[in-house]
Amino acid sequence: MHATQAYSATSATSPLAPATIPRREPTDRDIQIEILYCGVCHSDLHFARNEWGFTQYPAVPGHEIVGRVTRVGPAVTRFQVGDLAGVGCLVDADLSCPHCQKGLEQFSPTSVMTYGSMDKHLNLPTYGGYSEDIVVDEHFVLKIPSNLDLAAVAPLLCAGITTYSPLRHWKVGPGQKVGVVGLGGLGHMAVKFARAFGAEVIVFTTSPSKRDDALRLGAHQVVVSTDPAEMARHAGTFDFILDCVSADHDLNTYLGMLGVDGNLTLVGAPEKPLPVASFSLIMGRKSLSGSLIGGLAETQEMLDFCGEHGITSDIEMIRMDQINEAYERMLRSDVKYRFVIDMATLKGA
Amino acid sequence: MHATQAYSATSATSPLAPATIPRREPTDRDIQIEILYCGVCHSDLHFARNEWGFTQYPAVPGHEIVGRVTRVGPAVTRFQVGDLAGVGCLVDADLSCPHCQKGLEQFSPTSVMTYGSMDKHLNLPTYGGYSEDIVVDEHFVLKIPSNLDLAAVAPLLCAGITTYSPLRHWKVGPGQKVGVVGLGGLGHMAVKFARAFGAEVIVFTTSPSKRDDALRLGAHQVVVSTDPAEMARHAGTFDFILDCVSADHDLNTYLGMLGVDGNLTLVGAPEKPLPVASFSLIMGRKSLSGSLIGGLAETQEMLDFCGEHGITSDIEMIRMDQINEAYERMLRSDVKYRFVIDMATLKGA
Repeated sequence: MHATQAYSATSATSPLAPATIPRREPTDRDIQIEILYCGVCHSDLHFARNEWGFTQYPAVPGHEIVGRVTRVGPAVTRFQVGDLAGVGCLVDADLSCPHCQKGLEQFSPTSVMTYGSMDKHLNLPTYGGYSEDIVVDEHFVLKIPSNLDLAAVAPLLCAGITTYSPLRHWKVGPGQKVGVVGLGGLGHMAVKFARAFGAEVIVFTTSPSKRDDALRLGAHQVVVSTDPAEMARHAGTFDFILDCVSADHDLNTYLGMLGVDGNLTLVGAPEKPLPVASFSLIMGRKSLSGSLIGGLAETQEMLDFCGEHGITSDIEMIRMDQINEAYERMLRSDVKYRFVIDMATLKGA
Repeated sequence: MHATQAYSATSATSPLAPATIPRREPTDRDIQIEILYCGVCHSDLHFARNEWGFTQYPAVPGHEIVGRVTRVGPAVTRFQVGDLAGVGCLVDADLSCPHCQKGLEQFSPTSVMTYGSMDKHLNLPTYGGYSEDIVVDEHFVLKIPSNLDLAAVAPLLCAGITTYSPLRHWKVGPGQKVGVVGLGGLGHMAVKFARAFGAEVIVFTTSPSKRDDALRLGAHQVVVSTDPAEMARHAGTFDFILDCVSADHDLNTYLGMLGVDGNLTLVGAPEKPLPVASFSLIMGRKSLSGSLIGGLAETQEMLDFCGEHGITSDIEMIRMDQINEAYERMLRSDVKYRFVIDMATLKGA
């Protein structure tokens, strides 16, 4: 065990502040990574403030981690000291269950989340990426393409895979009309991926002010969802819609945008159950689905795809000591489109 | 135009009673069918009582029709006078739209329902199968396997295809664990089909008294959905669930029964929107879908499959003048599992 500098919340109502946390020494299969950048996901805020009800304090958020390998266990084969490395939402699982065998580690009953789970070796909570270093089983460490801006890669580890995976699973591609609801951290990545996959991309937004930015990100059209006439023109025409909104909203409106056999997939997670009219699904054999990040192999595939196509997140870099202000701005959607912490600023913060 | 004896409702609150309705003379492409049996679908009751709000009176329900061909237009190629013939929920569509081209006539914007739509030739409402005869475009007329009990075939035209189609579309088969929610007219057909397709079939029911009957129909197991311990044993294990319940019920419970990538498809249509928790779908990449009857080619495939496998509906035969009492019994779920009207009893009713 070694001590690591971090930024943590000590209660649901206290701001994040400097702290020291324990990390395990690398086992044979482990990699230790010096964290260079960590993206700021809305889940970090939910977790820090115990909005899901299971937070143990001190709580160290952060699951969009990129850094450099500083130590490797003797059984590690894919990484060497000095390599770039990424860690997302998952850091462990027994890898023997049917889901792991299919590359869906996120659904394993033994999966360990980057923060808010239990470190099986230390029998202590896992602590996330708002910290100096992290120790992770090699299976859960990703290779980072060398041609991309490293800070802008960090959000790919959660926002990227969360949107890439459902677009791939539901086979979005050329000839398809694809909608993206909500142009935030997830939505702006969905636009980039859907465009790169060859689909016709339409952004639904409540804010006409986002039109130019949506087009710049790759959307072919923007539909203002509060304009009934504009919505009516697109009713029944979409093959796939990725719903990235985590606030309450009316799903039946978007189900009505789908054509026959269309699919609306949720990646945002509104707190309250959303009313679904059975006729919204029956008339047109439509589906409402959910998707959760992606497995490790697919996350690597996504990073490689980003390397080939020059795709990263649009980010605003912050210092570690700006995190509490960043949370407040995130709540106001005042970020284009993801905050990333320069972890060099943790020292002395 | 010719006059046809029928049974109709003259208002939302009046019982069905004898009436005379107009039918068109067969066009070149039309077939006239003497109706021998007509199944009684819950939709008939909704329609007769204007529970969907669009009923025009007089209203003649009935869309599970079997009979014998009495006249054919000169362009008719697949039927001859004397042949058995079936008609389901659809009687017309322009057949040129992309949905018709894919064999999904039920989703055509020009589709004409057997009752409650407009007859394009007469510019009068369409009237259903509680009648002496019906005149239908050949494309919408089904061949009836000669080895089956004709009265018990009638419900296949709606209850049969409504359950067959989603089980086929979502590829239910050997090695899969399939649930059926609600053991009524639809549910009992779903059990027969899912069993015939080689799946492991589990019936969810609120009534332990239905256990023996569910097993007799082909279920491998019955789970009493009000028993939390029994439900917990099956949580997360189903590949597919067909939800045949049209009353309000909790979908999240059944979404929790699905395994990773599982699908819950609605064929019953509860009136009120059903609350769906986003996490019910996100955790396990699950889907909630809807399905509406089936196209004509698939309906014929279903009838042929029933012929090969000796599958029909379990029915209780009634006289035409028992229809109002049958509606009341249907509301109490007091039918195993479908009423079928012996249309010979219309004469003199």
